[in-house]
Amino acid sequence: MAFTPLHDRVLVRRVESDEKTKGGLIIPDSAKEKPAEGEVVSVGAGARDEDGKRVAMDVKQGDKILFGKWSGTEITLDGEELLIMKESDILGVIA
Amino acid sequence: MAFTPLHDRVLVRRVESDEKTKGGLIIPDSAKEKPAEGEVVSVGAGARDEDGKRVAMDVKQGDKILFGKWSGTEITLDGEELLIMKESDILGVIA
Amino acid sequence: MAFTPLHDRVLVRRVESDEKTKGGLIIPDSAKEKPAEGEVVSVGAGARDEDGKRVAMDVKQGDKILFGKWSGTEITLDGEELLIMKESDILGVIA
Amino acid sequence: MAFTPLHDRVLVRRVESDEKTKGGLIIPDSAKEKPAEGEVVSVGAGARDEDGKRVAMDVKQGDKILFGKWSGTEITLDGEELLIMKESDILGVIA
Amino acid sequence: MAFTPLHDRVLVRRVESDEKTKGGLIIPDSAKEKPAEGEVVSVGAGARDEDGKRVAMDVKQGDKILFGKWSGTEITLDGEELLIMKESDILGVIA
Amino acid sequence: MAFTPLHDRVLVRRVESDEKTKGGLIIPDSAKEKPAEGEVVSVGAGARDEDGKRVAMDVKQGDKILFGKWSGTEITLDGEELLIMKESDILGVIA
Amino acid sequence: MAFTPLHDRVLVRRVESDEKTKGGLIIPDSAKEKPAEGEVVSVGAGARDEDGKRVAMDVKQGDKILFGKWSGTEITLDGEELLIMKESDILGVIA
Repeated sequence: MAFTPLHDRVLVRRVESDEKTKGGLIIPDSAKEKPAEGEVVSVGAGARDEDGKRVAMDVKQGDKILFGKWSGTEITLDGEELLIMKESDILGVIA
Repeated sequence: MAFTPLHDRVLVRRVESDEKTKGGLIIPDSAKEKPAEGEVVSVGAGARDEDGKRVAMDVKQGDKILFGKWSGTEITLDGEELLIMKESDILGVIA
Repeated sequence: MAFTPLHDRVLVRRVESDEKTKGGLIIPDSAKEKPAEGEVVSVGAGARDEDGKRVAMDVKQGDKILFGKWSGTEITLDGEELLIMKESDILGVIA
Repeated sequence: MAFTPLHDRVLVRRVESDEKTKGGLIIPDSAKEKPAEGEVVSVGAGARDEDGKRVAMDVKQGDKILFGKWSGTEITLDGEELLIMKESDILGVIA
Repeated sequence: MAFTPLHDRVLVRRVESDEKTKGGLIIPDSAKEKPAEGEVVSVGAGARDEDGKRVAMDVKQGDKILFGKWSGTEITLDGEELLIMKESDILGVIA
Repeated sequence: MAFTPLHDRVLVRRVESDEKTKGGLIIPDSAKEKPAEGEVVSVGAGARDEDGKRVAMDVKQGDKILFGKWSGTEITLDGEELLIMKESDILGVIA
Repeated sequence: MAFTPLHDRVLVRRVESDEKTKGGLIIPDSAKEKPAEGEVVSVGAGARDEDGKRVAMDVKQGDKILFGKWSGTEITLDGEELLIMKESDILGVIA
């Protein structure tokens, strides 16, 4: 069952960051204010600018991202907990 | 009796999600914060951009959609309970 | 005595919806949150976009419309109670 | 003594609506929420759009108008009580 | 000592309106809600529109104006009490 | 050590106005509501308009300015107390 | 592990300002209201203007910057505490 986010929305799978990985991104569970790590599942076609033209999305399927811990709306798709958020809620891409 | 939503509004029929369907979208009735599932009944001609031109709608009649549980205004059309909401209240399309 | 609404305003006559009509639009008087039914009496020339050009109105005289129950300003014209509202307060057109 | 409103402002003389006129516009003094009736004394040259060009005014000197009862700023010009308001505070023109 | 207001600001000298002048503009000191009378001392070069171009000012040095009684910031220039305000705070020009 | 303000920001050195200068600008220390006097130390390259183009700054290094007493953020540069503020916080230029 | 900020965001490493450096920038730890000093680690591709085109960033990797002490979101990257903030939170560049 596929889900296509509308406009500039992004479907995100929350990733449990491995806190023991050496030299990796560490986000301790107790740090409430820190951003969460996720993976982009699917992206919308983009919002429209003031002239009605699509604005290309900056993230794509598979991107590892950081986003504000409280961003997005939770949905359950095929039994999996996912998040729908706006691209502007995404802080950046981890490469 | 037909109803044509104005501008970027969409007429939506709420769909009772089958919570027993395997591998399907599951939105338990107790999960108040989760989005609701619906079907697009009819769509407006689109809002106008800053130059007065129509912006095409991204959803069309028959689309299965997710929308915020508290979005839209309830109307009764031909004895059926429907919802009028703005396209921007729709989170995405299920395919 | 004619009244021409300014800009994107619309003059509306409230219509008492026939709650006994079979298969028709039913808006019980007790349902406070539901939209009201009306008929467009006259429309303004349209608002101006950012370049100062008129934006054409989407409703026209005679249109049967739904609008938010608390929308508009009441005026008495030739002894009749009417409403002046912005076109954006109109939810859609019944055909 | 002439007064020229700036930008999209309009100078308005409040008109006591004749509540006994048959078939005319009736605005009882007790109806606080109802709009007031007035006559346009003079109009500004118009606001400027985003490109700095003038936007033509939709009302002109002599127009009979309806406006929100609490709109505008009172001034006394040549001993007469008048109102300065923005054109957007005017609901429509009576003809 | 000259003072050039920045952008769309205007330097204004408050004028004590002669309340005994017959047929003139009368603003009694007790009428707190009424606009004040002033004279334009100097004007800025104008704000810039969305394309960065100057928007010409509608008032000029010497103009007799009305402005909201509480508009502007007081400054003392060469021992004289003056006001700096935005042109949009000016209601109109007396001629 | 040089400091270049970003966008439409301006670096300002607060000037103690000489309250005894005859015929000059007098801002008594007790007048909390009055604007402060300053000198422009350096200016940013300008903000960008809606098309991404730079908007030229209206003040330049060395300008004597008036600004709202509580405008800007204090920084200590080379042991000197300075202020960073947006150009829009500047009321005008003294010449 | 690289991190690319999205849109007009900037990744910043907080710099402990040497308070004993003579003639340098001094920000005592007790001065809560003063801006903090940092170094740009990486920058986003830029926000998009109203026409959907990228707006070039004004800061680049390696820039020494001042920013509001409470700006940005803290992240831990490769064990190092860094900040993600919008370019508009940056007050200026130290050279």
